[in-house]
Amino acid sequence: MLEEAIAQLDPEGPARVIAAGRTDSGVHAAAQVAHFDCAGPIPAHRWPAALNGRLPGSIRVRAATSVPDHWHACFSAVYRRYRYTIHNARSTNLFLAPFSWHRYQLRLDEGPMLDCLQGLLGHHDFSAFQRAGSSRPHARTTVQEVGLERQGDLLTVEIQASGFLYGMVRLLMGQLVAVGEGRLAPAHFERRWRQRAREEVKEAAPPQGLCLLRVGYPEPVFPKAAWYDCQPRYLLEIPDPPELLPLAAGNSAPAE
Amino acid sequence: MLEEAIAQLDPEGPARVIAAGRTDSGVHAAAQVAHFDCAGPIPAHRWPAALNGRLPGSIRVRAATSVPDHWHACFSAVYRRYRYTIHNARSTNLFLAPFSWHRYQLRLDEGPMLDCLQGLLGHHDFSAFQRAGSSRPHARTTVQEVGLERQGDLLTVEIQASGFLYGMVRLLMGQLVAVGEGRLAPAHFERRWRQRAREEVKEAAPPQGLCLLRVGYPEPVFPKAAWYDCQPRYLLEIPDPPELLPLAAGNSAPAE
Repeated sequence: MLEEAIAQLDPEGPARVIAAGRTDSGVHAAAQVAHFDCAGPIPAHRWPAALNGRLPGSIRVRAATSVPDHWHACFSAVYRRYRYTIHNARSTNLFLAPFSWHRYQLRLDEGPMLDCLQGLLGHHDFSAFQRAGSSRPHARTTVQEVGLERQGDLLTVEIQASGFLYGMVRLLMGQLVAVGEGRLAPAHFERRWRQRAREEVKEAAPPQGLCLLRVGYPEPVFPKAAWYDCQPRYLLEIPDPPELLPLAAGNSAPAE
Repeated sequence: MLEEAIAQLDPEGPARVIAAGRTDSGVHAAAQVAHFDCAGPIPAHRWPAALNGRLPGSIRVRAATSVPDHWHACFSAVYRRYRYTIHNARSTNLFLAPFSWHRYQLRLDEGPMLDCLQGLLGHHDFSAFQRAGSSRPHARTTVQEVGLERQGDLLTVEIQASGFLYGMVRLLMGQLVAVGEGRLAPAHFERRWRQRAREEVKEAAPPQGLCLLRVGYPEPVFPKAAWYDCQPRYLLEIPDPPELLPLAAGNSAPAE
């Protein structure tokens, strides 16, 4: 879509866009970064409004700037950060459904999930979490930061790495939720990825819970307001009962 | 949609639904309450799953219970509470756009807005905030509670009343934003509604910022988890610059 909009505005240019990372269909991106070469006279600060006028409402360009020839949206990046949101409550919540994975049967145990996450820190081969179809020459990357937070019924996991393998976060989250639900022991989680047991890593978390949150460069290219955590945090005032018992509908006494 | 789903499950019944309040097209409802008569043998606690299997994904029944014949979703209610969300930042945020009104030109001044809101408390004639097409015999209602909160670029207004006139919150919010942007003096705001100057109240706030948050009954009919503030609060980590200057895109030095 972006390339089509650029081609309309800059018919002489190559209209070829290089993004910092690919996101699967259904995955959100709050601050994707991309570069392109252009041939026409449009100054950098005019591009966002011009592009937004030609893009569908679900894609918005927040900022643009010109960069030196050697700057590359993907290769100049020093980190990517993803957030995965889990709604861990019995009832569906229509406000959260487009942005989270609804796990309603069991309450996830965060302790072992965080232990597993922290074990990923550092430079490792993560073949176990790589989907088929990748063009990468190897499967090593550096996990720089991990975090897990529960606020009532909402769990958010954040992972920052120098780069991510194809499908990595969704496969990882599938395993992590199995740990949180007691279906996979933390020791087995670790054995799987250390031994690159890709064939044992079967379930990928659904795409809508995932969001590319930030892309980092050695020197900031844009003002912070343009790229820093544009996905809001979601806060539910009153959590569902923690024990995830069925709602007492039908049992509660009606008003008299 | 609900009546169609009920008719499939209870073909002998009247399949006529009475809701606690009407919401305009485009307005969200987090905890609408409705009652209906039925003829068949389905017990109350089986209705949610049965209905959800027949409803589109954008409507979900969270709980059901049986009530005495004299109980009425609309007339037994003692309050309704609405929340209106304003995203007061220069850049569009695609995560918030479906649930908020994007006011990007000026920073809203909350002080006078809250003063105006508080002036509404009590039993008054609110003809000034009533859209044409209402079937109500009069335009008096009791505003029980008001609130306004700013968290960075997000403003939320909550209003609880014994009942609301047709279109009331959206007309009121249009006036309130005019106050916050300095286009309408608080004294004129008050004069307009006290003098029922409906013809001066022109702009209605757009529907997607509004959400029916709760409906209250003398005795709770459902467990709290089923109805209490299902719309999450949205938190942005880093606000846009408060002065709402244009983003410095194009001016910022690219990384070297």
